[in-house]
Amino acid sequence: MKNNQNNKIETVRHSLSHIMAMAVKNLYPNVKFGIGPAIENGFYYDFGNVKISQEDLPKIEKEMRGLIKQNIGFVKKTIDKTQAEKLFTEQPYKLELIEEIGEGKRKTVEVGLQQPRQTIATYQSGDFVDLCAGPHIGSTKEINPLSFKLAKVAGAYWRGDEKNPMLTRIYGLAFATGKELADYLKILEEAEKRDHRKLGRELDLFLIDPVVGMGLVMWPPKGAMLWRIMEDYWYKEHLKNGYELVRSPHIGSRALWETSGHWGFYNESMYPPLEVGQTLKEAQEGKKSKIKEEYLLKPMNCPFHVVLFNSKPRSYRDLPMRWAECGTVYRYEKSGELSGLTRVRGFTQDDAHIICAKEQVEDELKRTAKFILATLKTFGFKDFNVYLSLRDPKNKTKYAGNDKGWEFTQRTLEKIAKEVGINYKKEEGEAAFYGPKLDFKIKDCLGREWQCSTLQFDFNLPERFNMEFINEKGKKEMPFMLHRVLFGCFERFIAVLIEHCAGAFPVWLAPVQVWVVPVGSGHRQYAKETGKMLQNEGVRVEVKTDAQTVGKKIREGEMQKIPYLLVVGDKEVKAKSVAVRQRGRGDLGTMKLQKFVDKIKKEIEGKK
Amino acid sequence: MKNNQNNKIETVRHSLSHIMAMAVKNLYPNVKFGIGPAIENGFYYDFGNVKISQEDLPKIEKEMRGLIKQNIGFVKKTIDKTQAEKLFTEQPYKLELIEEIGEGKRKTVEVGLQQPRQTIATYQSGDFVDLCAGPHIGSTKEINPLSFKLAKVAGAYWRGDEKNPMLTRIYGLAFATGKELADYLKILEEAEKRDHRKLGRELDLFLIDPVVGMGLVMWPPKGAMLWRIMEDYWYKEHLKNGYELVRSPHIGSRALWETSGHWGFYNESMYPPLEVGQTLKEAQEGKKSKIKEEYLLKPMNCPFHVVLFNSKPRSYRDLPMRWAECGTVYRYEKSGELSGLTRVRGFTQDDAHIICAKEQVEDELKRTAKFILATLKTFGFKDFNVYLSLRDPKNKTKYAGNDKGWEFTQRTLEKIAKEVGINYKKEEGEAAFYGPKLDFKIKDCLGREWQCSTLQFDFNLPERFNMEFINEKGKKEMPFMLHRVLFGCFERFIAVLIEHCAGAFPVWLAPVQVWVVPVGSGHRQYAKETGKMLQNEGVRVEVKTDAQTVGKKIREGEMQKIPYLLVVGDKEVKAKSVAVRQRGRGDLGTMKLQKFVDKIKKEIEGKK
Repeated sequence: MKNNQNNKIETVRHSLSHIMAMAVKNLYPNVKFGIGPAIENGFYYDFGNVKISQEDLPKIEKEMRGLIKQNIGFVKKTIDKTQAEKLFTEQPYKLELIEEIGEGKRKTVEVGLQQPRQTIATYQSGDFVDLCAGPHIGSTKEINPLSFKLAKVAGAYWRGDEKNPMLTRIYGLAFATGKELADYLKILEEAEKRDHRKLGRELDLFLIDPVVGMGLVMWPPKGAMLWRIMEDYWYKEHLKNGYELVRSPHIGSRALWETSGHWGFYNESMYPPLEVGQTLKEAQEGKKSKIKEEYLLKPMNCPFHVVLFNSKPRSYRDLPMRWAECGTVYRYEKSGELSGLTRVRGFTQDDAHIICAKEQVEDELKRTAKFILATLKTFGFKDFNVYLSLRDPKNKTKYAGNDKGWEFTQRTLEKIAKEVGINYKKEEGEAAFYGPKLDFKIKDCLGREWQCSTLQFDFNLPERFNMEFINEKGKKEMPFMLHRVLFGCFERFIAVLIEHCAGAFPVWLAPVQVWVVPVGSGHRQYAKETGKMLQNEGVRVEVKTDAQTVGKKIREGEMQKIPYLLVVGDKEVKAKSVAVRQRGRGDLGTMKLQKFVDKIKKEIEGKK
Repeated sequence: MKNNQNNKIETVRHSLSHIMAMAVKNLYPNVKFGIGPAIENGFYYDFGNVKISQEDLPKIEKEMRGLIKQNIGFVKKTIDKTQAEKLFTEQPYKLELIEEIGEGKRKTVEVGLQQPRQTIATYQSGDFVDLCAGPHIGSTKEINPLSFKLAKVAGAYWRGDEKNPMLTRIYGLAFATGKELADYLKILEEAEKRDHRKLGRELDLFLIDPVVGMGLVMWPPKGAMLWRIMEDYWYKEHLKNGYELVRSPHIGSRALWETSGHWGFYNESMYPPLEVGQTLKEAQEGKKSKIKEEYLLKPMNCPFHVVLFNSKPRSYRDLPMRWAECGTVYRYEKSGELSGLTRVRGFTQDDAHIICAKEQVEDELKRTAKFILATLKTFGFKDFNVYLSLRDPKNKTKYAGNDKGWEFTQRTLEKIAKEVGINYKKEEGEAAFYGPKLDFKIKDCLGREWQCSTLQFDFNLPERFNMEFINEKGKKEMPFMLHRVLFGCFERFIAVLIEHCAGAFPVWLAPVQVWVVPVGSGHRQYAKETGKMLQNEGVRVEVKTDAQTVGKKIREGEMQKIPYLLVVGDKEVKAKSVAVRQRGRGDLGTMKLQKFVDKIKKEIEGKK
C-alpha cells in the first residue's frame, strides 16, 4: 500500500518535470532540453540556451498550472533511432543520449525499464515529446495543483562533468497533499533558520575566508570560547575516565605514512607531500636536484600514537593504554564538497586510542560505549541511530587481520552494544578494511542524521608497526587497538550543536552567559560591579555600558541568544538586586544578585 | 686589569692549541694541520689524516704535559710566500691558507693583526712551526699544567663547508687557575645532569623520532600533562587579564602569506608550498598541468588574527582587542641546527595580538609587561635580562612604518619599562624591521640566558592588510598592533623549565604529584582508597601496587622526581594516615590523610 503510494507520487513528480519542460518551452521557445527526473521530495529539469533566475519561477509555475488545468494526457510511443534523431533534430543533448542508446552504452534515458537496442521510448504530452521510459500519469488531472512548488534555480554541468556546458536546473517540490508540502516547507524554513552557516555569521562563531583558504576555519572569540569550554570539559572527563593525554605534530615524514599504509590507500584524501630540498618551481624549470625530505600533513593522529607506544618496551602491566588527543588533521576534500563546518579541509578530532590485551577488550569497549552515550547526553542529544558495521563474510580477503580476530571483535562489539542498551542496526560489509566498528549517528531536532561518535577496531596498524607487549608469560603478544571519537570532530559537532539548539546554547556552553544592562548612565557603576562579581564567580559576562536604549540592548541580547539579561536601574542598585530576563522564558522578575549567582552556577554545574 | 688578565688567558689558550698540535704530531706523525684558535673557555685544533677518539685524549694530554715541562719557547718569524710554501709543503690545508694570504683574500691565518701582502707570520715552538699571527706566551712555563684539560673530540668540515673533507677537532678547556677549571667542570657536569634531552628521556616527557621527522616533537602522557597544566594556567590567566581566545588553522593560502609579506622576507624559514593540483613528481616528469591551489604551513599566527580583525567593520568601542592563541607553527630549520626542545621545526607559540588605538598603547604595554613579569615569577624565574631593541637611527629607510610611529612606540616602550621597574639594556639597530621590541631573556640557575618572552610592535601588518577602525570622530584610523608571547613557545619554555629545576617540577606543575606505595599486599586496598581520595581532590596520583619492594619503589619515585611519596603499612591503615616523604626533604613522618591533602592542595593553589 505504502509502496504503491510512493510509486504514485514518484510518477507524479516525474510527470511534473515534463510539465515544467513544456511551460519553459512555451516561455522560452529556444530552450534546449537536458534531462528531468523525479527526485526525493520533488523533481528537476536541466535547461540549456536560456537565462532563468529565481524571479522567473512564479511565471513558470503559473504557466504549469495553466497546462495542468488543460487536462493533458501522457502517451508513450516507441520509435527507432532514425525516427528519434529526426524528432529531436534541434535538441543536441537529446541527440547525444539517442546516440548512446543506439550504441547500447545507455539502457534508457532516465531511471526506468531496460530497452532493447535501437528501440527508443518517448512520452508525449500535448505538443511536447521527451525521450523517456516513463512511467507517467495518465493525464494532468491526476496532479493536485496545490501540492507542488518550484523551489530554486541552480547551475549544473551537462551530465555532471565540468568540461561540459553549464545548464540551468530548476528544482520543484511535489507531495501527495498540500499539507505534506506545507509541512515540508516549514521544515525547510526551520532548517534555514537553524543553518549553522547563517547562525555562525550572526553569532560571530566562526569564519571561513577564501584568502585563508576554503574549508579552513578560523574561530573569532565567541567560537573559540565555545571550543575551549568543550575542550576543557573533554579533557576533564577523559582524565576522570582513566585516559592519559598525548600530543603529536601536524606533519610526519612520508616514511611514517608509508609504514602506516595511509600513503597508499588514503593518499587521494591527503595533501601532497611537502618536498624539502627542491621546490616545485625548480622541478618545473627542469632542475634535477635531489629531494632531501618529504613530509605529509596528517590526515589522522593514529600513527603518532603508535610510534609513542613503540618508543619503549611495554608490559601487560602497562595495559590498557588510553591515549587521548584533540588533534587537528587535514584532508583534501574537493572544493565542491565543502560545506560550512560539516565538510572542511582541516578539523580537530577528539581522538583517542585504546591499546589493550585481549582479555581487556570487552571491558574497554563497554567503558567507551558508556562514555560516548554519556557525552552525547550531556550535549543534549537524546536520539541517535547506531550502526554495527561488520565485514562482508563472502569477501574476507579484502580485510586486514585474521578470522579469529574478526570473529572475536565483532562478537564482543555486539555483546557490549546489547549490554549497554544500544538499539543498533547490523550492517554486513560496512566495516572498514582494518576492523569492525560501531557508528553513532546523532538525530538532531529536525530528524536529520549526523555521523559523530565512532568506535573502531584496528587490525592494520598493530600489524604494520609490529606493535607488541610482553604478556604475563613473558612472551611477545600483539595488542588490540581501538580508535574512538566522541564528538567526531569539533567542527562538525559544533555545526550539529548550533543547528540542534538553533544557536541558543545551553547555559554551560554559551560563550557569553550573561549581559548586564544598566538602565541609565547612573547605573553603569553598579552594572560594572555586578559584572565583576559574576566574573569572579566564573560566569562569562559582558557589561553593556554603551549609549543604546535598554530596549535596543535587550532586543540585541535576544538576537545574540544570550541566556540571561540582567537589567539594573534605581530599584536594583538600591536593593543590590538584578531584574532577570531568561532566554526563551522572558521576565523572571527581580532577585538578589547572590540568588541569581547561585541559580546560574547551579545550572552551569548541572550542564544545563 | 681585568682586560689584561683576559688577554693573558686568551694567549695561553692559543698557545695550548699549538702545544696540542705538537703533541698530536708526536703521536700521529702523518697528521695534517687545519687551524687552531683560542675560543671561549679554551681552544681547539682541527686535524686531518688521523683517527682520534675520546679514548685517546688522556694520551695526548699526557704528551702535552710532557712538552710543557720542557719549557719550550714561542718564537715569531715573518717569512715570504715562497719560503712559507716550502716550509708547509706537506701541509695541504696550510698551503691553501698561504695561497689566500698571498692573494690578499685573507689578512692572516687566525684572528689577529693585519699583515701586509706577501708577508706571512709564523710561530715556532720546538720543532713545530705554525702559520700564525700570534700573539703567544714566551714559553710553556707560563702555563699552569693543572688549569687545562682536553674535553672532547668532534668532526668538523674544513672551513665549515660540508663539501670539504671532515677533520677531527679536539676541544680543550683552559683557565687561569685550577680552581676556575674545576668550577667550570662542575658547571658542565651540572648542566649535563640537567640536560633537558637526557631528563626528557628519563622522565618520559617528550620524544623526537626520526621516523616522524627531526625537530618534530611528540609528547607522551607525562609531557602532555605538563603541557596541559601550563596551557590551562595560561588560558585562565588570559581570560582573567581581559584577553579573548581565537583559533586559526595550520595552513593558509599562498596569497595570504604574500599579502603578509612572509612569503618574501621569511620564506627561507618556511616549508615549501603544498601544491594541490600537481605533484612534484608530475612536475619532474615534465607534465605542465596547472597548479590549482598553493598552501603554506604557518610560520606565524599573526596574519590569521589580522584576517579575523578585518572580517567586520571595527569601531573604537571594540578596542583594545586582546586576542590570544596557543598556535602551533612550523619553520624549516637546518637539521644541523636542531637541538632537543630548544631548536625544533614545529612549536607552539603562546601568542597574542593586541590591536588598539594610539591612546591605549601605553596602558596596554604596561599591562603586558606586568603580565610577562608575573608569569615568569610564577614559573620560578626570578632573574632575566631585558633588551630594548630600537631601530638604527642612521638607517631609517630599512624599516616599515613612519618616523612618528617609531618615535612614539620607542619612547613609550622605554617609559613603561622604567615604570614597571625593568632593568633593561638599550640596543640600537636591534629592532625588527617591522617595529621596536622588548625581549626578555631568562637566566636559569646556571646563569645561562634563554630568549623567551617578547613584546613587539608591528607597523608592517596593519599597513599590508589595511587594518582600520572608525574612531570617535567617525574617521578611519589605523590601529597599533602588538605581538607578544609570555613563554615564547611551549617547547623551549619547557626545556628551560626542565633544566632550571633539573626535572624536579614544582608540585603544581609536576605531571604526577604523588605516589602511594603500599608496604605489603595487605595494604593495597588502603593504598587504592587513598589514591582515589586524592584523585577526587584533584591531585595527580599513581598507586604503585606492583610487586616491587618498598625500598625499590621509593628509589624509583625519587629518580622520577615525584614530589611526594606516601608509604602506607599497618600503622597507616589503622590510623587512616600516610607516611610522607617529600622530594628533597626526605621523611616528614606520618600524618592524617586529610592533613596531607590540605598541605598539598595549599601548595598547588600557591603555585609551589
